Amino acid sequence: MKASELGERKLIELLTRGLYTNKRVLAGAGEDDAALISFGGKELVAKSDVMFSSTHFPKGMKPEQIGRKVAVANISDLAAMGASPLATLFSFGIPPQFDVNKLRGIMRGINQVCMEYNAPLVGGDTKKAKELSICGIALGEIGRGEAIRRCNARAGDVVAVTGEIGNAALGLMILLKGMKSGRYPKLVNAFLNPSARVKEGRAIAKCRVGATGMDITDGLLFSAGEIARMSGVCLSLDSGRIPLSKEARKFAKEHNVKENYLLNNGEDYELIVSIRRESFEKVKSRVEDAGGALFEIGKALRGRGVLLDGKKIDAVGWDSLKSSLA
Amino acid sequence: MKASELGERKLIELLTRGLYTNKRVLAGAGEDDAALISFGGKELVAKSDVMFSSTHFPKGMKPEQIGRKVAVANISDLAAMGASPLATLFSFGIPPQFDVNKLRGIMRGINQVCMEYNAPLVGGDTKKAKELSICGIALGEIGRGEAIRRCNARAGDVVAVTGEIGNAALGLMILLKGMKSGRYPKLVNAFLNPSARVKEGRAIAKCRVGATGMDITDGLLFSAGEIARMSGVCLSLDSGRIPLSKEARKFAKEHNVKENYLLNNGEDYELIVSIRRESFEKVKSRVEDAGGALFEIGKALRGRGVLLDGKKIDAVGWDSLKSSLA
Repeated sequence: MKASELGERKLIELLTRGLYTNKRVLAGAGEDDAALISFGGKELVAKSDVMFSSTHFPKGMKPEQIGRKVAVANISDLAAMGASPLATLFSFGIPPQFDVNKLRGIMRGINQVCMEYNAPLVGGDTKKAKELSICGIALGEIGRGEAIRRCNARAGDVVAVTGEIGNAALGLMILLKGMKSGRYPKLVNAFLNPSARVKEGRAIAKCRVGATGMDITDGLLFSAGEIARMSGVCLSLDSGRIPLSKEARKFAKEHNVKENYLLNNGEDYELIVSIRRESFEKVKSRVEDAGGALFEIGKALRGRGVLLDGKKIDAVGWDSLKSSLA
Repeated sequence: MKASELGERKLIELLTRGLYTNKRVLAGAGEDDAALISFGGKELVAKSDVMFSSTHFPKGMKPEQIGRKVAVANISDLAAMGASPLATLFSFGIPPQFDVNKLRGIMRGINQVCMEYNAPLVGGDTKKAKELSICGIALGEIGRGEAIRRCNARAGDVVAVTGEIGNAALGLMILLKGMKSGRYPKLVNAFLNPSARVKEGRAIAKCRVGATGMDITDGLLFSAGEIARMSGVCLSLDSGRIPLSKEARKFAKEHNVKENYLLNNGEDYELIVSIRRESFEKVKSRVEDAGGALFEIGKALRGRGVLLDGKKIDAVGWDSLKSSLA
């Protein structure tokens, strides 16, 4: 069978089945946003996210933006676990003809993110390859038992997100269709210059209230589905409460983009969380103290899957093996 | 300027110049075999090594062998620092047409190595790409101050290696030239089924004698040059003492391969170390207790560079950006 027939998620399921593990692994392959490993009285969080020029970098992306995107994508999974960034590594596949100045630009973009999140680039590798590829690795640390997992949601929880949904997906659409972006700087900027929700993740983790969460880079509905699946609950979302920007509403109306497109497409580095109702106000105020926000968008119920305004939805999310940017 | 004009090592130098760092980074980008980070009373060791089908996997390599090679390459850098393997991550670039059964074979090869070295695969990523690529990440741990660095060699040190040199380079030659390998199973096996010198590295690190070392996957002479450069000494090697296998000698003689080819080409996962003379016998016996060996092959002198039988040599090592397998 070909990899594309199986798709990314089934492939991962197949490839990670029955792998060797040991007692220090608290969350292993395919189990959460990042790996969680017991280490010297704390927990080590590790995540790798790889991108390829043919799939992930639309034309017109500047080298600094490519670097920023790869770095933020990796840091975002630390944020989703509630970890403090510790360090990053980046391994490059480089076509021999590739321009060195562009590589330097990519490194500037990466290094800028490393500074912002205090996660120094400590290593990596460079090898010849057919296309530009960048494999990022983010390492973080977290106190014992603090990690925000995907599997702790319970019926009755409040479901919330850390910010506006869909800006980046529309920004990518603008870039891919070669539309003029001047009227929608916020949308394009959300795609090209993303940030990771580290301070929000840390604030939530430090509350130690058994919060559940992940980032929504593969789409809000897909992530809701993942939390529902891993926690054995149903996530019921209220579309009227999902924060959309003025620009996103305007662009969607003008270009006849359905709201579901915003909820099904990724590239936003916001977090979706599920938190016990009795803890929610406290957690929300801690996140606000850290300079962030939490918007209630629904609740967890007994059952399975995801409801949007009471209707069952099937969220497949982005699958790079089945899809392509072009 | 094109990447190939600059070459791998100068490119790394250029790209890692002036990067952000902080106090917890004990060895950062480009500084040693792997990164060394202070973490909860211990030190965390992290390394990433990426390989691409067009550059690293000669035809005829079985999926299990590809997996094994990538995993061992990553674990070997932990061994070179003297670390205990902790966990691994692997991120794949996969052509959509790629056969799923081959991927499963690669995972079997990786998982076998993870079991052998007690380094569970805890995460990674899969994305669509133009060619098969595998980015490995190895995480390890080590007690404070135990790490085997590249920069501690001193004049008067004994220089030693952990095993035979050149078997894998000749094995690769046999495979690339499509020669019959039946007569030289040891050589081909050294390339296809490598092991990492973890127990040797651990035994040396635990002696806490300020040992210096690295692996020799880019060639023995290149690695000797790196230790000389990073430590500010000259490494003087005695070719007569460098352990070569009977098969390697025989093959080299029959096929008119010069000894320098064995010393300049990589793929062996042995370690080269430099150890104070007064500590060498103790370290050697500890390595033997752990089931390994140390072969004295020369000494460190005042000066710079590498001498082979008293003659200055210029070891450039393998550079994937400038070279190719074909």
